[in-house]
Amino acid sequence: MEEYKIFLPEGEIPTHWYNVLPDLPSPPPPYLHPITLEPMGPDDLAPVFPMELIKQEVSRERWIEIPEEVREVYKLWRPTPLYRARRWEKALDTPARIYYKWEGVSPPGSHKPNTAVAQAYYNKMEGQTRLTTETGAGQWGSALAFGCALFGLELKVYMVRISYEQKPYRRIMMETWGAEVVPSPSQDTEAGRRILAQDPETSGSLGIAISEAMEDAVTTEGTKYSLGSVVNHVLMHQTVVGLETKKQLEMAGDYPDILVGCVGGGSNFAGFFLPFIKEKIDGTKPNLRIVCAESMACPSLTKGLYAYDWGDTGKMGPVAKMHTLGHTFIPAPIHAGGLRYHGMAPIICALYDQKLIEAVAFYQNSVFEAAVHFAQAEGFLAAPESAHAIKAVMDEALRCKESGEEKVIVLAFSGHGHFDLAAYEAYLASQLEDYEYPGEKVKEALKDLPKVAV
Amino acid sequence: MEEYKIFLPEGEIPTHWYNVLPDLPSPPPPYLHPITLEPMGPDDLAPVFPMELIKQEVSRERWIEIPEEVREVYKLWRPTPLYRARRWEKALDTPARIYYKWEGVSPPGSHKPNTAVAQAYYNKMEGQTRLTTETGAGQWGSALAFGCALFGLELKVYMVRISYEQKPYRRIMMETWGAEVVPSPSQDTEAGRRILAQDPETSGSLGIAISEAMEDAVTTEGTKYSLGSVVNHVLMHQTVVGLETKKQLEMAGDYPDILVGCVGGGSNFAGFFLPFIKEKIDGTKPNLRIVCAESMACPSLTKGLYAYDWGDTGKMGPVAKMHTLGHTFIPAPIHAGGLRYHGMAPIICALYDQKLIEAVAFYQNSVFEAAVHFAQAEGFLAAPESAHAIKAVMDEALRCKESGEEKVIVLAFSGHGHFDLAAYEAYLASQLEDYEYPGEKVKEALKDLPKVAV
Repeated sequence: MEEYKIFLPEGEIPTHWYNVLPDLPSPPPPYLHPITLEPMGPDDLAPVFPMELIKQEVSRERWIEIPEEVREVYKLWRPTPLYRARRWEKALDTPARIYYKWEGVSPPGSHKPNTAVAQAYYNKMEGQTRLTTETGAGQWGSALAFGCALFGLELKVYMVRISYEQKPYRRIMMETWGAEVVPSPSQDTEAGRRILAQDPETSGSLGIAISEAMEDAVTTEGTKYSLGSVVNHVLMHQTVVGLETKKQLEMAGDYPDILVGCVGGGSNFAGFFLPFIKEKIDGTKPNLRIVCAESMACPSLTKGLYAYDWGDTGKMGPVAKMHTLGHTFIPAPIHAGGLRYHGMAPIICALYDQKLIEAVAFYQNSVFEAAVHFAQAEGFLAAPESAHAIKAVMDEALRCKESGEEKVIVLAFSGHGHFDLAAYEAYLASQLEDYEYPGEKVKEALKDLPKVAV
Repeated sequence: MEEYKIFLPEGEIPTHWYNVLPDLPSPPPPYLHPITLEPMGPDDLAPVFPMELIKQEVSRERWIEIPEEVREVYKLWRPTPLYRARRWEKALDTPARIYYKWEGVSPPGSHKPNTAVAQAYYNKMEGQTRLTTETGAGQWGSALAFGCALFGLELKVYMVRISYEQKPYRRIMMETWGAEVVPSPSQDTEAGRRILAQDPETSGSLGIAISEAMEDAVTTEGTKYSLGSVVNHVLMHQTVVGLETKKQLEMAGDYPDILVGCVGGGSNFAGFFLPFIKEKIDGTKPNLRIVCAESMACPSLTKGLYAYDWGDTGKMGPVAKMHTLGHTFIPAPIHAGGLRYHGMAPIICALYDQKLIEAVAFYQNSVFEAAVHFAQAEGFLAAPESAHAIKAVMDEALRCKESGEEKVIVLAFSGHGHFDLAAYEAYLASQLEDYEYPGEKVKEALKDLPKVAV
């Protein structure tokens, strides 16, 4: 009988995260202070993040040990299975061999707890008693709520008001794990009160929620702020995914021709492909293709400018060099909320700029068509974000069908769609809008970049 | 480092289902025809079920081979992990060793596909092109939709109207897998039209939906009906769960003192404990305790009468000897929809009558309290049904804390609660009602039992 899942035993959970910084041809330029626009040092970040994470953010060590306590928590769902998509290959009638690394088995249902657990741990170790964060649809907030529950930290989540009202399920999940969740803007912060005074009916935004969470962290004793994507240390924590995948592919006797994942902030896919990138950089595997799948409604890589920009709408966080659509750009309300970010992880942007990785953007109807095709063959219902990667894999597999090539395609399957079924319903009812790339809006937004000489 | 999950490789998926009938001290009495009340033969069941399942229903073979094609599908999620609940043990401060067998990793999120896939396969093999079934909240319907998608069968699901309207997510899941879902009562059947004529505003019931699905099956070419619990062959298909658990406990070097599961129709827990029962029956393990957790709102075992009764409200299906609250009894709207069944699997009832297994009933607030305690320690959010079993385990573990006994308690953790978060919200907001056992209503309902001399 043929194998479907390649399992690693618990003892094979990676002992170290992989830090790509020392292996990059040229590392991303430094963060700048949001107000002075001068390069930021550890002291600038200390009010917001615990010292260990600040160190990790700029570390030049290639391998950073995963604390025992974090690995113990990983065991609740890691190593995750790597699947050979045998049924989907048949349904696609492709000679390609398709694999998917399934992160939906974690309690919050995605890759997010890989870093949430680590961040909760380091904060606990440094004596914090409470964290704050923002969340949109709730994937990140629920992962951090899970992490905080396990380490006995309090958590306050500022949840974008429209999601708080329209998507109660992830909020309830956070509350079940013990977190306090408030709609943002809230009356609990200066930033929130200011916005509410101007517009009491505002539906909120991720930018506002970030401002509230950061203000809360810097003004409250024993409290730090926690970030779920984009920055280097978050990407590094996610490399457990790629490190496991590499071992599992070896067990299956295969090496990837194409790695595919979706990118919003970039941490999911970076965690998956970074452990493979050294072989591409050093020329061992020059033909390895790495394909980022993004949304046509928010195509930071394929349409954005590679420039310094603020990471958040509120201009409170660091300024980073990245592919950006402008920090004031507000993407159309696609269902893949996790892909609605104006920027992109600086590490991904540096690699994209150096043409070591590729990107492709999709309309959402084509994405859900692929996800339904996948679900009818493999069973699993993908999160709308992951569905973008499924679409990219489907395209590659169909190209293999035409060419007859037996390529090995490996998908970073980042999470389940159990809280996104309204999106599937809209697709099945032909009520899903394909938002065109808003070129004019982006052009406007790009006028607001910080004036930095690079 | 300590192990949390005991994984079996795919090659260890059981090759045979275990049929307990030849090992029972006395088997359950035969089914009776719903109208004549005479013992039913295979011919009576042939219009409804495929012949292979009718044979399995009365088979005296101890082991029945699982078809290769069914095992191939099982590989999408089986073997499921057996967890040692190390964090929950610590949180409970108990000397007991707690394990849980986690069926929530299947694509539909519960144990249900273990039989749905087998039933879809046999129907396909016997030339059927279409199945019908009923569903309440949608767990069973979505499992069968998944099974039918994989074997290319059409499926029509009659979904109780109130659930169809109030719980759209499971419906969308079924539709994503390609099933047709209609609210029941519908205009598509004689039975549905009759009810709608009397009461156009009816919210429907499982009994009505069963009548519609059966009528559709017997009156449509190439169509059979499919049942998700209660009957012998369904319990047998579920024994893959218990057979795997047995192997995994051996790998962990433990043998259970107490097996715990929730019971609605009974197939989940029977599939879990039946592979252990022979050792209890033959006296090898006389002290093994098997504890059925049910709802105080629908306590078939702890309060019901052991008597012949119809399995469905519409009196279209077989009459079986079972612990029943009466086929006209309508339980209070607890969130554990899967536990709202007036009867119980005849095999479970025979064992309960012979005092080989025990039962305990809970109010729903105590059940959700236990589920939240579990979620904060182990991460996973239980379905409200499974939460009843979690409550029973918690009680046993706390008794061990008092007595100092290091008992081995093993939980059948049948499914996740991702579509039941409204129930958690109600609990957290102290808005959950503890429905008292409706003794008077049951007394009334028990007046309507069939007049059978036993």
